[in-house]
Amino acid sequence: MNKHQKIVIIGGVACGPKTAARIKRLNPKAQVTLIEKGELLSYAGCGLPFYISGQVKSHNELMATPAGVVRDTQFFKAVKDIDVHNHTLVQSVDRENKIVRAVRIDTGEPILFPYDALVLAVGSKFQVPPIEGTDLKGVHFLQTIEDAQKIRNLSQTLARKNAVIIGAGLIGIEVTEAFKKQGLNITMIERLDTAMGQLLDPEIAYHVHNELKANGVSLKLGETVTKINGDDRGSVRSVTATSGEIPADIVLIAVGVRPNTRLAGEMGLEIGKTGAIKVDSHMRTSDPDIYAGGDCVENCNRVTGKPIYAPMGSTANKHGRVIADNICGIPSEFKGVLGTTICKLFNVNVARTGLSEIQAKNEGFDYITVLNPSPDKAHFLPEARLIIIKFIVDRKTRKLLGAQMVGPGDVAKRMEVAVANILSGVEVGDIADYDLAYAPPFSPAMDNIITTANIARNKLAGLGRSYTPFEVKAKIDNNEDFIFLDVRSPEEYDQMRIEDPRVRLIPLGKLRTRLAELPKDKEIISFCKISLRGYEAERILTGEGYGNVGYLDGGILCWPFEKIVKP
Amino acid sequence: MNKHQKIVIIGGVACGPKTAARIKRLNPKAQVTLIEKGELLSYAGCGLPFYISGQVKSHNELMATPAGVVRDTQFFKAVKDIDVHNHTLVQSVDRENKIVRAVRIDTGEPILFPYDALVLAVGSKFQVPPIEGTDLKGVHFLQTIEDAQKIRNLSQTLARKNAVIIGAGLIGIEVTEAFKKQGLNITMIERLDTAMGQLLDPEIAYHVHNELKANGVSLKLGETVTKINGDDRGSVRSVTATSGEIPADIVLIAVGVRPNTRLAGEMGLEIGKTGAIKVDSHMRTSDPDIYAGGDCVENCNRVTGKPIYAPMGSTANKHGRVIADNICGIPSEFKGVLGTTICKLFNVNVARTGLSEIQAKNEGFDYITVLNPSPDKAHFLPEARLIIIKFIVDRKTRKLLGAQMVGPGDVAKRMEVAVANILSGVEVGDIADYDLAYAPPFSPAMDNIITTANIARNKLAGLGRSYTPFEVKAKIDNNEDFIFLDVRSPEEYDQMRIEDPRVRLIPLGKLRTRLAELPKDKEIISFCKISLRGYEAERILTGEGYGNVGYLDGGILCWPFEKIVKP
Repeated sequence: MNKHQKIVIIGGVACGPKTAARIKRLNPKAQVTLIEKGELLSYAGCGLPFYISGQVKSHNELMATPAGVVRDTQFFKAVKDIDVHNHTLVQSVDRENKIVRAVRIDTGEPILFPYDALVLAVGSKFQVPPIEGTDLKGVHFLQTIEDAQKIRNLSQTLARKNAVIIGAGLIGIEVTEAFKKQGLNITMIERLDTAMGQLLDPEIAYHVHNELKANGVSLKLGETVTKINGDDRGSVRSVTATSGEIPADIVLIAVGVRPNTRLAGEMGLEIGKTGAIKVDSHMRTSDPDIYAGGDCVENCNRVTGKPIYAPMGSTANKHGRVIADNICGIPSEFKGVLGTTICKLFNVNVARTGLSEIQAKNEGFDYITVLNPSPDKAHFLPEARLIIIKFIVDRKTRKLLGAQMVGPGDVAKRMEVAVANILSGVEVGDIADYDLAYAPPFSPAMDNIITTANIARNKLAGLGRSYTPFEVKAKIDNNEDFIFLDVRSPEEYDQMRIEDPRVRLIPLGKLRTRLAELPKDKEIISFCKISLRGYEAERILTGEGYGNVGYLDGGILCWPFEKIVKP
Repeated sequence: MNKHQKIVIIGGVACGPKTAARIKRLNPKAQVTLIEKGELLSYAGCGLPFYISGQVKSHNELMATPAGVVRDTQFFKAVKDIDVHNHTLVQSVDRENKIVRAVRIDTGEPILFPYDALVLAVGSKFQVPPIEGTDLKGVHFLQTIEDAQKIRNLSQTLARKNAVIIGAGLIGIEVTEAFKKQGLNITMIERLDTAMGQLLDPEIAYHVHNELKANGVSLKLGETVTKINGDDRGSVRSVTATSGEIPADIVLIAVGVRPNTRLAGEMGLEIGKTGAIKVDSHMRTSDPDIYAGGDCVENCNRVTGKPIYAPMGSTANKHGRVIADNICGIPSEFKGVLGTTICKLFNVNVARTGLSEIQAKNEGFDYITVLNPSPDKAHFLPEARLIIIKFIVDRKTRKLLGAQMVGPGDVAKRMEVAVANILSGVEVGDIADYDLAYAPPFSPAMDNIITTANIARNKLAGLGRSYTPFEVKAKIDNNEDFIFLDVRSPEEYDQMRIEDPRVRLIPLGKLRTRLAELPKDKEIISFCKISLRGYEAERILTGEGYGNVGYLDGGILCWPFEKIVKP
């Protein structure tokens, strides 16, 4: 390592500043230059929805260190000894002579930056759908602090106005609550059949839909937007979707982001299959003197080993550390991601990692699934809240392929366990042996994720047959004849029930004495609230010689279809 | 496996009912008998403090399933087909003829239970210190629902009375908040120098002390109770401790529990080094037809491989599953525990797992420690709260030996990651690659535990020298001459500072231009709020040729000694 090497970093949001700071800590004599085309540096892009909602008062808070120091140009020079050139646009890179050619945006003055090592941390850019009207006044995208400021500056005027959010992906969902806090009437339009459809399976997405509806959001799934309509002053007036025209005073387009690869493409660096910059495990591009990280690169999916485009602020920070290490002569690898995602939507938390069931099927895995609803704390505490955990487990390796969680309770904690389990390369059953932190305010005695792992072990061992809600629904839709055996109490039945002629109520405590009511030649599918009693019923009936018995995964709590609920 | 085998289980709290229920699910034809000397069955012992506080309204809630069904004798028969004999005391076991001899407590009638397999789930018993007055009226222990009922029945009369809690271990700490909610003035007496002294290192315990004091608890550490004094009606009046007499209207003795081994001892089963029943990894005692689980057995410590006595409701449930599997012919192992513990104390959460630093030292490990204070959510959100994480890492294997966490923020989530990491057998550095669930309401972009793992990696790589707060305090107490360099801003200094002539304030942003003020021949120990800037100062000074520089682990936030804090 040359102690006085020149490192040029392009991009000042997350990966860039992280790389710069660590290089200076590892090698205080290195000459580190950071080039950013905008004004702002090192801000928390993920905080933008909270700035729009007003929970974050000033955009400066998004740019401050935890100790409250704003990370501006002066900060980087004085504290970190990093030369920052903002308002500076990189035009080209001469790889042969190792020179970055840039221009001052304000003055047009050209400026050259010679480098020993170059880092591309140029991020991503929102996608603009190919429809008319995306440039109207009142149509917004959300990526920079400036974007968020534009929306927030309207906040005085937004109350009771109509907002249309195009796209029910992560950003659309995260902004919904912020818009609601500003008093807007919200319509959300999504071309897929479920919200967060790239991330969640339908059983989990269904609870997201319910939460959106419960908070007054009009959700239009499976619909395409064909046009955004303006008035004669060039302001947005409405959105035309498959089912008709929706009035709109403000529109947010959130249909995804694309990696910024213009510069990398022009430089002749290799672009990966996902359309993002290809890097090796050392975050090196196809040019060994050039590294790239953050939202502009693709990652390795640690379940499939295949490339994945999964931009995330946490990943960008990890990239920065690895790049700095390698530049400073410390061999360091970034192993990849699981596509872990979490978000808060009103009173519900949603998280996912690894492969969804749909992805597992597409990848050709032979898998089982588990659906486990249960309270997140000791059930006798009034603050206990429901969470639903779904596992997708590889039947062959017995490893967790993916996990999804939803509910008003603490899903984050269980998600971290799933992530740690997958990335440690051990079997899903190992979770059942984790000595997790138990006390009533934190979890049931058998934590939800331990119970989920135990159900997975039971299923892998062939103990008990089960059906997913979708499998049972398909049987009903096919007019199949079976007994849908509800083994809850009459009081529970009265509160919430599935209305279908196949449903028969025999409380579990009465089952052994009322076997005569159940024919042995008909299929029986048992369920209760969460399907622990449903599973016990299946065990009892199988033990009594019934040959065709299964239970409903996750019980009535996870039944995503119509239910009669007593108000 | 004999389908109709007779299984007798002694003990009806946690492990016993769990074993019974799973046996019936695996083998519905098995004849399962459960013997319990008390009235109550399958209750959540860990919930007792919450019953005393009134957060749990009725003791029935502690005995109910999550669906609200009370688990009494009728429930077990009707729902689970398990024969329960409560109010029944086991007197002896004839191992040769495989017969349990018991007696009905109410009638004195003897009763015999032949078995194919026997399960001891006989729990633990609180310890009674060998002092005068433990039998006075108003002196309580806390183990059964009956114990808790006795205390709760007093609740009308307790307000503004004096309570003395003897023992600042887990149970004493958990009851403190419940007592406070009942309006009691609390004095807590502990013979060790720190609260939870068997579990926590002093840097973490110190924050527990602060929280107790902040909530008006008078904490007497390093004191022994020599006598409990009564009045002429046999009611408690005061407690005599090392420093004098403390008035007491109610006393809770919580000096630990001991495994119930009377029966096992009389049966000639092997008792382990910890004093609890010895079992193999299949939860089998020294008699292959007899299993034992729950609070009466010892476990394997998965860090040291040595036996440990660590009773815990979550572990008891895991034992039950393994015992049932093995009895039903499914080979199943329980691998052991880490001694993971968590509790909530007013506004602070405390958790620990694995070895404490003290235990690591005693076991002869060559280790490093990390102390990392940081907000538990994106720092720009007003709901972000501090947590402090301590890691103890084996220098040789680079594996986490133990972790401790404290603070008003979410420690539970990070604790689960530490547990999963240790139990997966991977290096501590792997945590830095975990694709944990990031969004601002759930964590900083670099989760606290990832940062902690990165600091551990830096330390293992010899990057930067650091001192623990205790090491620096020892230097001060030894009158060593060094510069204690505070690199925070004057405003931060004004808010909170360490008062010592060695302290010098040079904000990090000014450090590079004010090097002349710092002599090169003197040791310099730098710090800031959390020691990220402290670490950067160390890096800058080392880079400038200063030869004797270190930084203070965890900054001023983790400084457990006297600080000047602006009100």
